[in-house]
Amino acid sequence: MEAVNLEKKDCKIVVAVDESEESMYALSWCLGNLIPQTTINNLVLLYVKPPPPVYSSLDVAGFIFSGDVIRALEAYGNDLVKSVMGRAQEICGKFRIDVNVERIVGSGDAKDVICNIVDRIKPDTLVMGSHGYGFFKRAILGSVSEHCAKHVKCPVVIVKHPEKI
Amino acid sequence: MEAVNLEKKDCKIVVAVDESEESMYALSWCLGNLIPQTTINNLVLLYVKPPPPVYSSLDVAGFIFSGDVIRALEAYGNDLVKSVMGRAQEICGKFRIDVNVERIVGSGDAKDVICNIVDRIKPDTLVMGSHGYGFFKRAILGSVSEHCAKHVKCPVVIVKHPEKI
Repeated sequence: MEAVNLEKKDCKIVVAVDESEESMYALSWCLGNLIPQTTINNLVLLYVKPPPPVYSSLDVAGFIFSGDVIRALEAYGNDLVKSVMGRAQEICGKFRIDVNVERIVGSGDAKDVICNIVDRIKPDTLVMGSHGYGFFKRAILGSVSEHCAKHVKCPVVIVKHPEKI
Repeated sequence: MEAVNLEKKDCKIVVAVDESEESMYALSWCLGNLIPQTTINNLVLLYVKPPPPVYSSLDVAGFIFSGDVIRALEAYGNDLVKSVMGRAQEICGKFRIDVNVERIVGSGDAKDVICNIVDRIKPDTLVMGSHGYGFFKRAILGSVSEHCAKHVKCPVVIVKHPEKI
């Protein structure tokens, strides 16, 4: 019987991270379970920040934001990126393994952005938290992980935070 | 910063296998990507065969099967178990890695049986093919992997066969 060659190979894994504890847990799971076996590992931390607010006089709510408010919202978005990526990088540091970390920041609807980026960079695996929020919220918002598991072509790992289930 | 201990640990992985190429591919993926890093690996091959047919004179279709036909169907079910488990075991043999293989055969609706067994034996990870069949079939039958990813508590890996996407 022909044996399978398990030699170390180049490997790219995308972990979708966000503000949630669950996504940080998914990153830890990935580092502890998927990474160590290969020598050349490329880990892509993908964070999708919410789309910038677009307001006009035609908005139903009738809000018009001043330049100051828009700038403040943009700054908040940038702070989120720094905070999420900083936490993710800290987790990577705790696992003393040989891995090249790349960061990608997208903007828009997380499920579409993740699918598009995975489609483009063709990783070996996509890892993400399940965002297993309750029935009602899921029914309205849908689940990002569910959507991605359906639409991306690579293996998808959906990790639930053990304390949130 | 406190480093994470990556020492080898006991690990149990359930792979849901069935007649499909996709589930065999998922098993290969698991053996190539999830297994090698730990020393004590327990791999559970879980196969859920279709429930035995129950027919009575009250059936809408009005069929009454003779004992011979029922026996033939049961024998077919047992052949399926042998065939699926045989193929799975062969794939395990190709990966020359240290793993204890256990087999579990269930019967009934695959998605419920998989969730129940995972709930009972509490593995570290569940691996399965995506069964990414087309929109119409999915709409009627639902997706086993989708259901399991929603309901089981451990990380779930959903693997698509690269040639079927």
